[in-house]
Amino acid sequence: VKRVLLACIVVACLSGFQDQNSRTLQELVAVEKASMDGWQKGDSGPALAVSAPDITMFHVMTRQRLEGRSAVQALYAGYSGRPLFDSYRIDAPKVQASGEMAVLTYVLVTRNAENAQKWNATQVYQRSKGVWALIHSHFSQIQQ
Amino acid sequence: VKRVLLACIVVACLSGFQDQNSRTLQELVAVEKASMDGWQKGDSGPALAVSAPDITMFHVMTRQRLEGRSAVQALYAGYSGRPLFDSYRIDAPKVQASGEMAVLTYVLVTRNAENAQKWNATQVYQRSKGVWALIHSHFSQIQQ
Repeated sequence: VKRVLLACIVVACLSGFQDQNSRTLQELVAVEKASMDGWQKGDSGPALAVSAPDITMFHVMTRQRLEGRSAVQALYAGYSGRPLFDSYRIDAPKVQASGEMAVLTYVLVTRNAENAQKWNATQVYQRSKGVWALIHSHFSQIQQ
Repeated sequence: VKRVLLACIVVACLSGFQDQNSRTLQELVAVEKASMDGWQKGDSGPALAVSAPDITMFHVMTRQRLEGRSAVQALYAGYSGRPLFDSYRIDAPKVQASGEMAVLTYVLVTRNAENAQKWNATQVYQRSKGVWALIHSHFSQIQQ
């Protein structure tokens, strides 16, 4: 009986972890989609809103790591007002989480007319009072 | 007196965080250096040893996210036995940490004869029983 109980507890804990991880995945994919929906309209607002004050970012158009939301805002200013792509797709999203921190990775497929581009995306989030903020962002283009 | 005490506590806490953060930075840079020292000799051992069983990796030579240490090991097999570079430098390392998870970012400068290459590096570590393991890795080349 003890062993059965122990096995039940282990299974319950594991499925609890599983649920927690899939909830985090859902939450973070929703955040990413809000940002990408913004970019699809040329609106940097959602992407900026989710950026933590102390965000760091590697961006293909800059040669140094960006540090802080104001640096990101300055970069985004150059992209505002025009749609970044006609459509996009978030492929194979995955979360690795521990405590209040989570790494979301996925492949972003963007499409402009007939041209598709693929990007490796690493987005690190930190949760404070139940709200996720982006603390590090790294996109790199996949050579095709 | 209360205010002075409160200020002292705040300063003590902040410097505590500071110390903790700089210790984590030192530890993770040491881990990275061990891996890079290995690559400089064509030895993938140190890089593989620090990889978590459930590591994920974006690598310039693969078109999909690698998942798990055995996938990373298979990739590394192709690089073993020959030095990856003559020398390297870890520039501007920075840590963002929360609980048992930490993101180390830096710019890796590698040199072969007179050719230098620069890479944006995002390395996510998780600590278990005091030991750091790499759970996500994303390097991308900086266009020069």
